[in-house]
This record gives sequence, C-alpha cells and structure tokens, in this order.
Amino acid sequence: MQASENPSAVARIEIRFHDCDPLGIVWHGNYVKYFEAGREAFGNKYGLDYMELYINGFSTPVVHLESNFKKVLQYRDVALVEATFRKTDAAKIIFDYTVRKESTGEVVCTASTTQVFVASGTLELSLVTPEIFAKWKRQKGLV
Amino acid sequence: MQASENPSAVARIEIRFHDCDPLGIVWHGNYVKYFEAGREAFGNKYGLDYMELYINGFSTPVVHLESNFKKVLQYRDVALVEATFRKTDAAKIIFDYTVRKESTGEVVCTASTTQVFVASGTLELSLVTPEIFAKWKRQKGLV
Amino acid sequence: MQASENPSAVARIEIRFHDCDPLGIVWHGNYVKYFEAGREAFGNKYGLDYMELYINGFSTPVVHLESNFKKVLQYRDVALVEATFRKTDAAKIIFDYTVRKESTGEVVCTASTTQVFVASGTLELSLVTPEIFAKWKRQKGLV
Amino acid sequence: MQASENPSAVARIEIRFHDCDPLGIVWHGNYVKYFEAGREAFGNKYGLDYMELYINGFSTPVVHLESNFKKVLQYRDVALVEATFRKTDAAKIIFDYTVRKESTGEVVCTASTTQVFVASGTLELSLVTPEIFAKWKRQKGLV
Repeated sequence: MQASENPSAVARIEIRFHDCDPLGIVWHGNYVKYFEAGREAFGNKYGLDYMELYINGFSTPVVHLESNFKKVLQYRDVALVEATFRKTDAAKIIFDYTVRKESTGEVVCTASTTQVFVASGTLELSLVTPEIFAKWKRQKGLV
Repeated sequence: MQASENPSAVARIEIRFHDCDPLGIVWHGNYVKYFEAGREAFGNKYGLDYMELYINGFSTPVVHLESNFKKVLQYRDVALVEATFRKTDAAKIIFDYTVRKESTGEVVCTASTTQVFVASGTLELSLVTPEIFAKWKRQKGLV
Repeated sequence: MQASENPSAVARIEIRFHDCDPLGIVWHGNYVKYFEAGREAFGNKYGLDYMELYINGFSTPVVHLESNFKKVLQYRDVALVEATFRKTDAAKIIFDYTVRKESTGEVVCTASTTQVFVASGTLELSLVTPEIFAKWKRQKGLV
Repeated sequence: MQASENPSAVARIEIRFHDCDPLGIVWHGNYVKYFEAGREAFGNKYGLDYMELYINGFSTPVVHLESNFKKVLQYRDVALVEATFRKTDAAKIIFDYTVRKESTGEVVCTASTTQVFVASGTLELSLVTPEIFAKWKRQKGLV
C-alpha cells in the first residue's frame, strides 16, 4: 500500500432470509449492518481497534450516514462490502463503502459514514484527533 | 387484582414492513422483540424496574425461551402482546405471553421466558431471590 | 393544512432495550426503522397506501438515504419521528424526518429518504409519476 | 456419514457490535438469526433447498422454537452454530442447535426448531411429508 492510496478492506456477507422484506429483497435499512461489517473488516486488517480507543477514553459515534441504493440483493446472494478509509486532517473517521453482488460484480449500493471522537466521560466532542488515533494514522502512513 | 391471580399487561405493536420476510409475514425471530415489549409494558404497569435491579447489582438475563407459532401476522396488522407474570418461589422471573391479532382476536403465538438473577460484579447466578425483588413481590401480593 | 405547506405526521416510538448497543444508546442503524414508522404514520394520516400502489403495479424502493445524528436516545426514552412530505414535480417520493426526544423536545436526528417508482413486472424505473400517485397528490393539494 | 447418524453443518458467525445490547452481550433474540444461519449451512451442505420446496408448493414455517442460554457472547467473539437434522417420520423438519464460542469451545446456547409443511396456495398444514422432501430424505439415507 502506498501512502497516497486510501486503504480498504472487504467483508463478505451471505444474505439471510431474515434480512429480506416482503418484496423479496434486502430491506434498505439492513445495509447499515453491512457497512458496520465493512468497517470491522477494515479494523481487523489495519489494526484499528475501537475497543482500544474506548479504553483510552473515546467512543466514535456515527454522526452522518449517506447511502445510495442502485440495485437489489436477494436471499442467497452474497455481498462484498468494501470499506475505504478516507484520509482527512479533521478530527473525524470517514469511510466510503461500495457493496457489490459477488456473482456479477455489479455495484448494488454506495455509501459513506462519518464518525467523530467523543470523550467517554464528558460526552463532549473532541475537536482534535486523539493522540492514540493520530499515532495509528502515522504508523499506517495515512497522514 | 387479587393475590391469587397472575398479573399481566399488554403491549400494542404495529407490525412494520421491515419486520416481515419474503413470505410477507412477520419473521418468527422478530416475535422475541414483541415479547420484550410485553415485559416492558408489564414493568411499566407494576413498577418492576430492571434498571433499578441493575443499579442494585443484578442483571436478569433470559436463560430459557419457548415459543409456539400458530398463525401469522402481516404488514399493517396490529399485535396485542399480553405478558403474564407467573408466580414462583424460585429465584427466577417467568413470563407467559399470548400474542393476538387485534382485528380478529385470534391467538397468533404463545410463549414463555425465564430470567435469572446474576450478580453484576461476579457474573454469578444468584440462587436466592434478591431482596429488592422479593420486596417488590410482597408489595404486589405476589408471594 | 394549506396547499402551500408540506404535510407531515408523527410516529411515537418507545425505545426498546434491544435497539440499544453496548454504549447504552440506540444503534444508529436502527433509526432507519424509525424513519419507516414515520412514513407509515404519514401514509395512515394522508391516505397514501403503498400496498395500493403495489397492487397498481408499482413498488417504491428507497434509493437514497441521508441521516445526521446529533444527540443520543437511550432505553426508556420515547422518540417522536416527524415525517414531512416534500413537494416535488419529479417522479419521486421524498420525505424529511426530524426525530425528537419526547421528554425534552431536543432534536436527536434529522434525515431524508428518496423513493422512486419501479414497475413491478419489468423492474424498470418509471420516469413519470404513476397516475394513481399523481391523483393522490392532486386530491391533497400537493401539486 | 452413516445413515444411523444425524447429519449436521456448522455456520461461523462473527459477532457484530449491532447484535450486542447495553449489557455488552448478544441480545438473546438475535440468536434466532444464528439458528437460521445454521439451517442455511445445513441446506447448503446437504442440498436441502427451501426455495425448491417453495416452488413445489410448500413453505416451511417455524412453528416451535425452544432455546436455552447458558453463557454469553460478546462483540468480537466468533460463534460456531451447529445445526443437526433430527430424523423423524412426522411431516416436520426438526433441527437441534448447539452454539459454541470458537475461542474456548464452550457451549453458549442450545436450541431446537420445528418446521411444518404448509401448502402455499391454501395455507393449509400438510399432514403428510411432501414427496419432494421425502425423496431428499431417501437420497440422504435419512429415513
């Protein structure tokens, strides 16, 4: 990975019957779970540990979510959820997502989420990037 | 309420599109959410406060769940979830549930759950009923 | 309601334990269910019947979702989800949402969704507003 | 596999943040999704295709669910859900489940579900095993 590229990871999701609605397709709200699976895959791959952040005093709530649904997924499809870390100097964590249907490669959904750093004790928004997160970004060449 | 009767409460649930599956009916696993709504309605009516229990050192995990599905619920139906407190001397909280379709009164589902008392600190099962819960039972004439 | 105003309806949601995450707050993805409840409340109030649309050959999938999370909701809070119909000449259904905490009135979340009309048979996007929907808009003075 | 053994399959489930409740553990109702994943893994392994059954005129609703929760699962745990097909002459599909924590092997939950055959058209319960299912059982030596 070059420092100039945005790193990404992919989660593979088997679409379950219980995630599908009466139209026979994944209910749009369930994609938010798939985005979280993508973030999780990214964290596993790049050593970004939300629990370590939490232990160090910061939770990282999602404050913005945007999603465009282009195609549908059905029971027995497999989704590939790519989560890409967007480089930013702001005290934020921004991910872009591309959800593809494994069998055809077609893009089913694109999305992005923005997380901020909130001090666990005071519940106050941190306007600066916590040092533990800044250190992780430097280690990965993401500054 | 006579002490000889088991007290109950009813939660009214509007069936949502997102709770229904590709067969057009409520997916069976979603009834567990409705049971919880029934317990909640009971707690509101009879002053059984899980958070107060928690603050007093006890969580009350569900250790047994049994459910019989007899009819179906569909999008736009309304469910009436009756949760009935079962009297017992054991260190347990047992609820029986009857889920009815509001429009017809027919029984859609019956179920029961068993909760135990676990000490928050040690995560050990409490073999005796915590005093705060025993006190609540005495106040309600449920001993 | 004046024709010049955007009509709205409010769904009242009791926050359930099972909608809350390990941080003790409603998991952000669960708000999408609340938005749907808001749309449903609107449909009930203004006679917008998705099933009638469906029977007439059109499903109305959500193609865009955007949400801003400003505050948190916790177990035992009550949310008021206001869904407001946005007037448009486009062959779309656009709703704006404001989620408030009932006890304080503070705005917890704002959001919007865009739905399009898809022919049930061909799964093709309808570029014109289906007559049954156009008729509903005229009846409500929403053109 | 000997005909005298009950066949089984295992689904591997990464526990997601959004499946955990304010106590930091998987909310009990979410296990029902894991049971379905176990059934799905079984169907994939043994060629039991619910959609083919459906196309042949039968849906297979769950009419009974029973579950015992023994331990807890937390965010970042991995669950192994073993679904075992129980041989029976009745016109039913019965599965037993054992959910284990991958890291320790300990049994977290045991459960069983019973499904029946319902004619898609009449919604009537089938008192005899549909031929397509009986054929599958014979092929697998499960009679």
